[in-house]
Amino acid sequence: MLSAFATLPALPSVLASTQMAAADDLPVRGDPLPSWNDTQTKKAIMAFVDRVTKQGSPEFVPEVERIATFDNDGTLWAEQPMYSQLLFALDRVKALAPKHPEWRTHEPFASLLRGDVRGALAGGEKSIMPIVAATHSGMTSEEFDQIVRDWIGAAKHPVTHRLYTEMVYEPMLELVAFLRASGFKTFIVSGGGIDFMRPWTERVYGIPPENVVGSSGKLKFELRDGKPALLRLPEIDFIDDGPGKPIGINEHIGRRPIAAFGNSDGDLQMLQWTTMGGNPARFGLIVHHTDGEREWAYDRKSSVGKLDKALDAAPANGWTVVDMKNDWKSIFPFGSK
Amino acid sequence: MLSAFATLPALPSVLASTQMAAADDLPVRGDPLPSWNDTQTKKAIMAFVDRVTKQGSPEFVPEVERIATFDNDGTLWAEQPMYSQLLFALDRVKALAPKHPEWRTHEPFASLLRGDVRGALAGGEKSIMPIVAATHSGMTSEEFDQIVRDWIGAAKHPVTHRLYTEMVYEPMLELVAFLRASGFKTFIVSGGGIDFMRPWTERVYGIPPENVVGSSGKLKFELRDGKPALLRLPEIDFIDDGPGKPIGINEHIGRRPIAAFGNSDGDLQMLQWTTMGGNPARFGLIVHHTDGEREWAYDRKSSVGKLDKALDAAPANGWTVVDMKNDWKSIFPFGSK
Repeated sequence: MLSAFATLPALPSVLASTQMAAADDLPVRGDPLPSWNDTQTKKAIMAFVDRVTKQGSPEFVPEVERIATFDNDGTLWAEQPMYSQLLFALDRVKALAPKHPEWRTHEPFASLLRGDVRGALAGGEKSIMPIVAATHSGMTSEEFDQIVRDWIGAAKHPVTHRLYTEMVYEPMLELVAFLRASGFKTFIVSGGGIDFMRPWTERVYGIPPENVVGSSGKLKFELRDGKPALLRLPEIDFIDDGPGKPIGINEHIGRRPIAAFGNSDGDLQMLQWTTMGGNPARFGLIVHHTDGEREWAYDRKSSVGKLDKALDAAPANGWTVVDMKNDWKSIFPFGSK
Repeated sequence: MLSAFATLPALPSVLASTQMAAADDLPVRGDPLPSWNDTQTKKAIMAFVDRVTKQGSPEFVPEVERIATFDNDGTLWAEQPMYSQLLFALDRVKALAPKHPEWRTHEPFASLLRGDVRGALAGGEKSIMPIVAATHSGMTSEEFDQIVRDWIGAAKHPVTHRLYTEMVYEPMLELVAFLRASGFKTFIVSGGGIDFMRPWTERVYGIPPENVVGSSGKLKFELRDGKPALLRLPEIDFIDDGPGKPIGINEHIGRRPIAAFGNSDGDLQMLQWTTMGGNPARFGLIVHHTDGEREWAYDRKSSVGKLDKALDAAPANGWTVVDMKNDWKSIFPFGSK
């Protein structure tokens, strides 16, 4: 099952060495965040980690309670020109089309197969749901896992023509590894599909499947020829976005994070839940996409990763806002867009 | 919040020492399962752990994939004369009764408050659901957490008059600790309420909140006077029992366990999911309650923890069946019933 990953890029060397340090329980040597410029943002991160990990500090937090939650789309990997999972679904529609001649005359499939993505998605959720159902259900959990592994190991980003797993932010990979090396348990808490992320998050972020929280569909257990299977049903079970994020965190982790990292209004309630609960140790961070040259610049008006209310709420709540253009020395492991 | 635990009994010393060994990454010294008699059952457990942890063994499993799932009621702690969580709910009804004068004339509350537990529960699920709703919803997640901590720190078992957290099986505590010391990740997968277990499983079993899978109710995120809260709604979200267990495992862990431990038909599908998937490394175990003197003897006819189909399925699937009377040297940390 892991063969599809043979083609994935190696982790940036700094990340690999930080992870080894964590595994060996050695202190982190040198600069754990070399892809971050020496701005106030980096200083705020370092100061927080120092406060919660130093024995005797009034904000010291025992390791078991050092929970850090990361949004995925737009926080750990790119989400432009549209969510990778949506691009996956569109690819799957094309792959499945020969078995569905009826799609040639049924929307949103007909527009999609003519190459008119914008037209296909014009109906918003009403257009997207049939596409999700057609591509994410009707198979077992193991079959879907393999479909995702095959796709993520081969599909290329429409703008950069890189693997999607290369479209990850090097500074954030360093931050995830630094927190882990500092005794944190790192979780993904994403609006993306939980089973779409799990096949590759351990390899790419060092975050194992059991630390991934996401949206999910309903499942049905059955014995097929004496073999147990989980059949994926065309029905949403849970949307891990907005107010769903604190609920997903409570259900999966059962502890309030002390640090949360996001980039859009979908992360607002996770940031509130993490930082406004009265606990002394807390850290909220928003990745603001300000670099139209090396990545994409977008916020309040964007249909993908809209950042408006959470940006307004940041100053009063003491959330750190990353200015990608000025705070990040590099963007992607391969360079920039 | 941890003050309620000051009254909890210390872990059995053997468990504490095994856990320290795990934390220090030392090999386990001596017999890791001293409360188990030297029967075939113990040999089967030891042989399985040996096969999956020995480098070069055809069944070797990397540490990240060593997932072990444990049912709770009847597998890790006692479930007779009825589920502890139900006894918790009945205690809560009595505590809340002064604020609910209408309960004096409304069933199932009226019977319950007259001391007629059997009468109150005669309606089965129809009787239990209003009791669960009245006692498990209408407060925030933090308020419920405190209610559970207060109860579990003080309430006594109706037969043994011991704390419920003392009603745990010493041989199973050793087994959980032994697996963890052997590089396993240990999870609870129980029909019990996820938020009823999490306040005490780390202290009692060494299993942290994020490794607890259970049944849950719906939650609602809201800001109360500017403070974020999760309100518990009187609506079931997920029943982690029977076919729900593989689904709960998939949702929370995202990997198939290589070992599963249960005691009733509610664990049948978890055992199937764990052992019948074609993976070479697999272990299924059923705790059969055969000791009416030191604990309780029950199986096919019991209304609590009924063991019938799973017992029939054990031989063909190679599941190990614990004969409590003959396989266990001791039952509870304090002795026996």
